[in-house]
Amino acid sequence: MTINSMEKLRISCQEKGPLCVGLDTDPSYIPQEILKLYNSPAEAVLAYNTALINELESLAGCFKVQIAYYEAMGLAGLKTYANTLKILRDKNIPVIADIKRGDIADTARAYARAHFEGEFEADIITLNPYMGFDTLEPFLEYVQSKGKGAFVLLRTSNPGMKDIEYLELAPSNANLLSGAHSNQNTSSTIRVLDAVGSGLVHIAERFAPSSATSREDSSWVSPFGAVVGCTEEAEARELRERYPELFFLIPGYGAQGGGARLAASLLTHAGGTVNSSRGILTAWQKDPQLKVRSSSGDLTMEDLLRSAHQVAFASKAELLGALKN
Amino acid sequence: MTINSMEKLRISCQEKGPLCVGLDTDPSYIPQEILKLYNSPAEAVLAYNTALINELESLAGCFKVQIAYYEAMGLAGLKTYANTLKILRDKNIPVIADIKRGDIADTARAYARAHFEGEFEADIITLNPYMGFDTLEPFLEYVQSKGKGAFVLLRTSNPGMKDIEYLELAPSNANLLSGAHSNQNTSSTIRVLDAVGSGLVHIAERFAPSSATSREDSSWVSPFGAVVGCTEEAEARELRERYPELFFLIPGYGAQGGGARLAASLLTHAGGTVNSSRGILTAWQKDPQLKVRSSSGDLTMEDLLRSAHQVAFASKAELLGALKN
Repeated sequence: MTINSMEKLRISCQEKGPLCVGLDTDPSYIPQEILKLYNSPAEAVLAYNTALINELESLAGCFKVQIAYYEAMGLAGLKTYANTLKILRDKNIPVIADIKRGDIADTARAYARAHFEGEFEADIITLNPYMGFDTLEPFLEYVQSKGKGAFVLLRTSNPGMKDIEYLELAPSNANLLSGAHSNQNTSSTIRVLDAVGSGLVHIAERFAPSSATSREDSSWVSPFGAVVGCTEEAEARELRERYPELFFLIPGYGAQGGGARLAASLLTHAGGTVNSSRGILTAWQKDPQLKVRSSSGDLTMEDLLRSAHQVAFASKAELLGALKN
Repeated sequence: MTINSMEKLRISCQEKGPLCVGLDTDPSYIPQEILKLYNSPAEAVLAYNTALINELESLAGCFKVQIAYYEAMGLAGLKTYANTLKILRDKNIPVIADIKRGDIADTARAYARAHFEGEFEADIITLNPYMGFDTLEPFLEYVQSKGKGAFVLLRTSNPGMKDIEYLELAPSNANLLSGAHSNQNTSSTIRVLDAVGSGLVHIAERFAPSSATSREDSSWVSPFGAVVGCTEEAEARELRERYPELFFLIPGYGAQGGGARLAASLLTHAGGTVNSSRGILTAWQKDPQLKVRSSSGDLTMEDLLRSAHQVAFASKAELLGALKN
């Protein structure tokens, strides 16, 4: 049996650290003087992505590619998206396609073909659970057949998460917490996100090997993890303890302002990977050494890479430091 | 000021009937003998889509293109997607891009650029509200600037809708119903989908012209409608009365087994459009006259179109008939 992609990701993050480099590469993140060296913005983005992957692969547990920025460039952008994924696959670097798809089963089957096979093939994708767990099934088939994995939206880091994810459910939904890890710190409030979590626990149970003696056996992670971006540490600890077997994709670190300590509190148990996108991609804009040269318009790709490397290195160090404390 | 796309869609559905032809065109829906006339499955799909649009435009209030099936064909598929949208735009036929995107605001901004501009430009898109209403804002900017619209997932027709959408909320969320149309038949149970509905009512209020004296003024529809697929008539009537100003995109008719009467009960007030995809695209497979020729492998594109026309014609007639009763 092939090793599951989520397990591969966990091992990679143990070896290289928890940093996930997000290639949300908008052309506006590239200085004009570099953009104009290429035939199109999409080609410039591919060149930047390629250089970033080579520069940062030793520092990153994985890479995440946010498809929205490529869709925004049309067909040329999606060609760059396909090529970026191919570079990562060829290097055997774990790659997460941040696509947040979700649709009825027939349509989900098409999305699964689209992103687990062919030109857009990724190891792991992100999924939106809103339409229900039957919409996840077509993707689960690829866990068996190709060792694929997914991160399902559980608790996102944007302010609007209070609108749906954080709504309190009626007490009649208490069963959604019954399967969860019992812990005295667990609050008794049941939220929409707990319904998603409950579904992910059921998925974990379906795929758990009989050798894993308990949900807390940290030598195993479920092929379906969760997107968890917390803004307070108490909540982070609560969610981490409630879902010990789920590997977490943790957004909101870096440019979104999330702290390393908060991220570190989500990295215990099954662990996780901490995404930083814009903070790394636009590091050159905040590099004091580049400030003068930036205004005179003679930045080079090497300048961008040096800044990106410094920020990625510092981010990784900060995360590992926070993990030790 | 340009007329909003949702208003344009409403008028088109008044003139041509409520049928929305769904171009969820999987290559497997095309017989082998026709597929092999083209260089690739994606080219065959474009030919079929082109022919279907010409054949059915007089019967359809609008067309809906489900992007998942095109993503599943990779770059060639997305080229067909772009070309299909272009044909519809050039003919000034209202086109809904069924993309069900949803992401944090920065990313949503990229998705908005992707699907309201450029090669993949559509009049109206579908959106997933799970991450909250701030994720809808970047799309709302296009209501002002380009008259675009969207259908937000409210109540979907798949069995899994009970997992999240249909969960009962705590009584503390009663305010979510307070803005809604008061009606004695309205049940007091508050569900997750009511939170989405409440957000859509607020959006409607922001865009309502001062001349619209009440939410029930049916001469105006909100630029953001709702995806509503019901399986029971009482629920359909309840949702229809609760959101009188929202135009509905109604899935689940035809191949998914939803009845015309059910759909018709969602077409009152602001109205709606009723999608049929597979029932029309694969009509040839159920055409008794084609049965013999189908097995001997000599079907032509004209055969497919004739079957599709018959089913679309019958669907439209059935829907209009149900509306009268």
